[in-house]
Amino acid sequence: MPGKEIELLKEEMGQVIDLNGAISLLHWDQETYMPPKAAPGRGRQLATLSALSHRMFTDKSMGERLKRLSDDESLNADEQCLVRETLHDYELATKLPETFVETFSEDQSKAFQAWIPAREQSDFKQFQPHLEKVVELLRQKADYYGYEESPYDALMDEYEPGMKSSKVNRIFSELAEKQSVLVDEIVNSPKQPDVDWSLKNWDEGAQWEFTIQVLKDMGYDFEGGRQDKSVHPFTTNFDLYDVRITTRVHPEELFSCLTGSIHEGGHALYEQGFLASDQRTVLAQATSLGIHESQSRMWENIIGRSKPFWEHYTPAFQKQFSPDLVGVSSDQIYRAINQVAPTLIRVEADECTYNLHIILRYEIEVGLIEGDIKVADIPEVWNAKMKSYLGLDVPNDTQGCLQDIHWSHGSIGYFPTYALGNLYASQLFEQMEIDIPDIWDVVGKGDFSTILTWLRTNVHEVGRRKNAESIVRDASGKEPTAEAYLNYLRKKYGDLYEL
Amino acid sequence: MPGKEIELLKEEMGQVIDLNGAISLLHWDQETYMPPKAAPGRGRQLATLSALSHRMFTDKSMGERLKRLSDDESLNADEQCLVRETLHDYELATKLPETFVETFSEDQSKAFQAWIPAREQSDFKQFQPHLEKVVELLRQKADYYGYEESPYDALMDEYEPGMKSSKVNRIFSELAEKQSVLVDEIVNSPKQPDVDWSLKNWDEGAQWEFTIQVLKDMGYDFEGGRQDKSVHPFTTNFDLYDVRITTRVHPEELFSCLTGSIHEGGHALYEQGFLASDQRTVLAQATSLGIHESQSRMWENIIGRSKPFWEHYTPAFQKQFSPDLVGVSSDQIYRAINQVAPTLIRVEADECTYNLHIILRYEIEVGLIEGDIKVADIPEVWNAKMKSYLGLDVPNDTQGCLQDIHWSHGSIGYFPTYALGNLYASQLFEQMEIDIPDIWDVVGKGDFSTILTWLRTNVHEVGRRKNAESIVRDASGKEPTAEAYLNYLRKKYGDLYEL
Repeated sequence: MPGKEIELLKEEMGQVIDLNGAISLLHWDQETYMPPKAAPGRGRQLATLSALSHRMFTDKSMGERLKRLSDDESLNADEQCLVRETLHDYELATKLPETFVETFSEDQSKAFQAWIPAREQSDFKQFQPHLEKVVELLRQKADYYGYEESPYDALMDEYEPGMKSSKVNRIFSELAEKQSVLVDEIVNSPKQPDVDWSLKNWDEGAQWEFTIQVLKDMGYDFEGGRQDKSVHPFTTNFDLYDVRITTRVHPEELFSCLTGSIHEGGHALYEQGFLASDQRTVLAQATSLGIHESQSRMWENIIGRSKPFWEHYTPAFQKQFSPDLVGVSSDQIYRAINQVAPTLIRVEADECTYNLHIILRYEIEVGLIEGDIKVADIPEVWNAKMKSYLGLDVPNDTQGCLQDIHWSHGSIGYFPTYALGNLYASQLFEQMEIDIPDIWDVVGKGDFSTILTWLRTNVHEVGRRKNAESIVRDASGKEPTAEAYLNYLRKKYGDLYEL
Repeated sequence: MPGKEIELLKEEMGQVIDLNGAISLLHWDQETYMPPKAAPGRGRQLATLSALSHRMFTDKSMGERLKRLSDDESLNADEQCLVRETLHDYELATKLPETFVETFSEDQSKAFQAWIPAREQSDFKQFQPHLEKVVELLRQKADYYGYEESPYDALMDEYEPGMKSSKVNRIFSELAEKQSVLVDEIVNSPKQPDVDWSLKNWDEGAQWEFTIQVLKDMGYDFEGGRQDKSVHPFTTNFDLYDVRITTRVHPEELFSCLTGSIHEGGHALYEQGFLASDQRTVLAQATSLGIHESQSRMWENIIGRSKPFWEHYTPAFQKQFSPDLVGVSSDQIYRAINQVAPTLIRVEADECTYNLHIILRYEIEVGLIEGDIKVADIPEVWNAKMKSYLGLDVPNDTQGCLQDIHWSHGSIGYFPTYALGNLYASQLFEQMEIDIPDIWDVVGKGDFSTILTWLRTNVHEVGRRKNAESIVRDASGKEPTAEAYLNYLRKKYGDLYEL
């Protein structure tokens, strides 16, 4: 009875997905509303639920069912995808013993709790033993997963299935070279934007309100999501109809809240865009973090920092901050929001220097996992690379190696997906410009519906039916490369800085 | 190896409790921040996690372990309590056959669905057959649970363990008689409070801010809790260090937000006050709903509606709402917040009439379960009792026997805990007045630390080691009666209304 067995799989996996939704809520709450003393208890809850989810998913009967279904030729195409992707996850999950999963979850939670004060006090020593433990566990994890070339590949595979560090090394070295040349030209250009007008305090309520307006225009569904504040902006979902984002509000930064919201809004549109019929299955999931990041970065950078976007939004923006923006033109805003200025902080980095931050982290990560860099040496290595790539001195670890949440969450192999996301975004957008000839006219009207429809069809609704490379290849007709991205940067910044 | 087995019990129960904490978070989020379209998915998540928790707790090995531990004489006193209370819960959870639980759940759901339009249309006949079915099933449930005197006792035991209706009958009949006499005197008193000054719109932010100040003074730990808004105020906990409350803010009601916060704050102080060493066990739980309610009502009514409380807080209250309270004295506030006005609606009832609403419901519930009252006769009985106890004519069933959700949810035996809470509160507070001779002086200084210490020792830290009667008896040296409560009401309202 093949029909029955696929239904049983869906019901069993539905329960695992329900439990994972609860786990995501425990995480969301931890970073938004949870009171501080609750941290140890939350760590226990996360450990218990993660172990339970792992146990349910890795039950022997699940594996047997998946193997039977893999051989079932009566399944339709969607069912075959569902079985293939679920089996892929099953195989990854069964490689990790339950005790390892529990230990990892507990140590990860402790590392996160240690990172918060360490970052505040710029005291890497507080964080170091926790990160050492996490790195040790990650190396064990790579061994459990298995790898051909580098243990780093085993970790990166969780975020960007199929990607290898040997490929990333090649792409990143080309990118680093050409991007640093461009950055150098820009920094030395006599044509620099006027940003003095933006150096004041900007009403926090007005910043927040403006993000709501833009998110609604983008098509983000507030009936199936919400925006809150957190230290580090993120997107999460508990269900197809509960996709939440966070942002942050700093009075001295006019654009940080808005660009954070547009970025997370791009992620959220992806997660709100899976097919309803795929709900409560692994097909209603992102195919890779690189594709996820292509969505956020396309909205944030290619659209949200474009000239037509600001020609449209400047009057509303001026009204929101009235009278503080009187006399500031859309061109001034466009130039200011695209200012290239090497900074210490990744999440504040402009589009032109951003990848250099990623390459720095990527190299440290590979060093940690391959054993060439010790955790204790991170601050020193970090600071040296920051000087070399961006010409900056790091005054303290808060603005250096403690700035990101990722390592405290045990996420290594994650950072390169940001840069891959930039490449995918440009390559997809290049095709969109062909498919939607009036694309810049509609952006200039604040009407993003045709863009969203294109993304729904070519990316969102695909879910996990295709991997990142297939999505990019099928949409653009070309293998993913850095070409479209470098062309995009050269054209936009060549014009802005009169290179 | 007895030492090992008790540890295994703690670990297994700890996992169930972790899972229940996640379930509580799913509920909390549903009532506070969840976007509307997420409701169906949230329902699925709650169903999955609840079934999982039930399955883990009722596992046969758990029952066998508990029975072995029950016979283990090497356990210390705390461990014995832990086993006794866990076994009590296990037996409740396993006494009902699965088929009965399913039938009950279905009929309960139908009853709830029928109650909604019946209430809207004030048409009891629509609800009657469903309630008849629910009552029939509840009588079966009582049989499954077992009882000595009355089947009602078996149902009430879920909410107020150990309490018997024979006792409640005695207490409530005395209460009903004396409280209705008092209400009658108050209603006919020529001395009525001036409340005209309070009939305006009150700033919502000011209402909220004032609750935070009072909650902090009460000793509510915001580092291990938080306050949010919801339609109906409630308290929940996910962990000993994560006890959250909600309140509501209505601009036209000056006191509703504050009294809601103090009430929930009282519940929360109980849950924040369990012993750290009991954490993640059933001992760190409320011993009964009556004791829970004694805490909320003591803080809300005995303390929060006292004269010394308002002598202390009036200046801060005036400042918070400046200039809208200029010229309003603490005496005016004290009189207004204690206004007695019989109403048809229980949730709007004042301190002086509230118990009469409960007794009315209790008497009907006992009659239904013992077979002396037919469901068809409820409206007639209800209206007659409303006339007799509160002197009110019930114009329709919407404002009468259809107003509460409880029966439609199959909850019978719950209502009396509200009134028992009032009695326990007064009896405990009477003893506190002896043990803390300057109690009204410290309240008049907004210093509640000695009160909280007394409650911690005599109630909170006890957890489930003692049942409600033992807690009240051990603290006050007397069996629970209505005496202290009636003395309290007579003294306070005799003075207010010059009786």
